[in-house]
Amino acid sequence: MTDQPNNAHDEAFKELLSLRGSIDNLDACLVHLLAERFKLTQRVGHLKATNDLPPADKDRERRQAERLRALAKDSELDPEFAEKFLNFVIAEVIRHHEQISASQS
Amino acid sequence: MTDQPNNAHDEAFKELLSLRGSIDNLDACLVHLLAERFKLTQRVGHLKATNDLPPADKDRERRQAERLRALAKDSELDPEFAEKFLNFVIAEVIRHHEQISASQS
Repeated sequence: MTDQPNNAHDEAFKELLSLRGSIDNLDACLVHLLAERFKLTQRVGHLKATNDLPPADKDRERRQAERLRALAKDSELDPEFAEKFLNFVIAEVIRHHEQISASQS
Repeated sequence: MTDQPNNAHDEAFKELLSLRGSIDNLDACLVHLLAERFKLTQRVGHLKATNDLPPADKDRERRQAERLRALAKDSELDPEFAEKFLNFVIAEVIRHHEQISASQS
């Protein structure tokens, strides 16, 4: 038994474990950023519900999608995926806002 | 005409714009982190494809989901959403890995 890698397969497995460690670190960042983002959108939901502001803003969503596509291109992320991600998050935000409206009606 | 907010509705709109600015900043962070995450998983895909390592690891995915649910709970994010988010990202990773395998076969 030895701790030394004895072939290319072991080296690859060592690198795989190192990459997974970095992926886990990025995932922790992503979860914490999403948590903060939803705190902000919860506040937006309350503001809109109590101040007679329109619940959806298609123009704002279009601008967000364009901006994220541009940021994605700059950072070598697939712009299609960036827009899919935004839509995925917005769907959850809308679910929250509906809950806020329902609890106030 | 005045720049002063003249009622609660104007104050609410001002706060809405400020919250949107913060949401946009977080979205830029999210896109850049996702870009880095996909760079790492692309490397994982190449490593697996060239070193005869199994393409999927259900045990690893289960541990990732459990960990992200715990991190979500700690940061006041819905753990269900955190797991849905992980699955959303993993689906894209699998799509990339299939492309890598196809390009090498």
